[in-house]
Amino acid sequence: MPHISLPTDQPGIVGLFDFRPETAGPLNALAEVLLRQESTLTRGERELIAAYVSSLNSCRFCFSSHAAFAAAQLPEGMPLVEQVRADLDAAPVPSKLRALLRIAGKVQRGGREVTEEDVRAARAEGATDLEVHDTVLIAAAFCMFNRYVDGLATSAPDDPEAYAAMAEQIVTTGYAHVPAGLRG
Amino acid sequence: MPHISLPTDQPGIVGLFDFRPETAGPLNALAEVLLRQESTLTRGERELIAAYVSSLNSCRFCFSSHAAFAAAQLPEGMPLVEQVRADLDAAPVPSKLRALLRIAGKVQRGGREVTEEDVRAARAEGATDLEVHDTVLIAAAFCMFNRYVDGLATSAPDDPEAYAAMAEQIVTTGYAHVPAGLRG
Repeated sequence: MPHISLPTDQPGIVGLFDFRPETAGPLNALAEVLLRQESTLTRGERELIAAYVSSLNSCRFCFSSHAAFAAAQLPEGMPLVEQVRADLDAAPVPSKLRALLRIAGKVQRGGREVTEEDVRAARAEGATDLEVHDTVLIAAAFCMFNRYVDGLATSAPDDPEAYAAMAEQIVTTGYAHVPAGLRG
Repeated sequence: MPHISLPTDQPGIVGLFDFRPETAGPLNALAEVLLRQESTLTRGERELIAAYVSSLNSCRFCFSSHAAFAAAQLPEGMPLVEQVRADLDAAPVPSKLRALLRIAGKVQRGGREVTEEDVRAARAEGATDLEVHDTVLIAAAFCMFNRYVDGLATSAPDDPEAYAAMAEQIVTTGYAHVPAGLRG
């Protein structure tokens, strides 16, 4: 049961958006820019970074959601998300994406964990400054989203179908425009 | 030296805002709502939560900044910020604020660290659902800001005067409207 009384029974962050629309606006706008606006990283790749960090933070709602959003937008689908989660070094991802995911994993542990060497390695695989920046900020943002969702003990559906339905909405409409009646 | 090439030599998050205005917008809007919009927690108390979490994350730029912003808006000034940082249990803060700072400290370690008992204790001291919510989200947001700033190895001024000048701007103008020429 959530630590605070929410106005709806929407799971995870969605119930928190209903509780506090004033913060929902900037949070959704941030997700929209980082995960969906034009970028040299695909939407699927960026959702994979979000899902990976959420998995490292053991946030069930965020991992299940962003794993579904990544799977819906990656040609390789859910098997790749599961492979990255299980063993990043062995997962069949392009080497630039692997280097960026390694940086994201460092950010999850703490900002100071990211070394010059980590960034040099990503750059050697072709990563740009903007890609490094966005990877660090996506990873940092999910350290926020994960703590927000779990720090208030919100619920997470067991049924994978719930996340697949959310994925359909996010893929077609994005983060800023999901109507209340179509969420969760 | 920052891990990426920034367009200005502004320190900490300010240089990152100059690099990526598209994410600066939502990030500043979030800070403005959480730390400055109308609330039953004073602006000084909310900045104290931000400074406390930044201290736990050892983020020098964010701690120095938000410590200065808290000091400028708390009747007790910087000595109280330093006492909270050094020993929360012994610091002379109202018991509701102490209970909320304890929740913030749990969030810093991870969302699942916050227990029903932590929230009950805050409620027993008069904390509302909205105050618990905002405390959790402020703490979570600074786990993002701290990782963003340190994950990209941005600089932090040594001179306390730099933070005091920033504090004057934040106190009078807020997060969303600091003109480039007046920052840092």
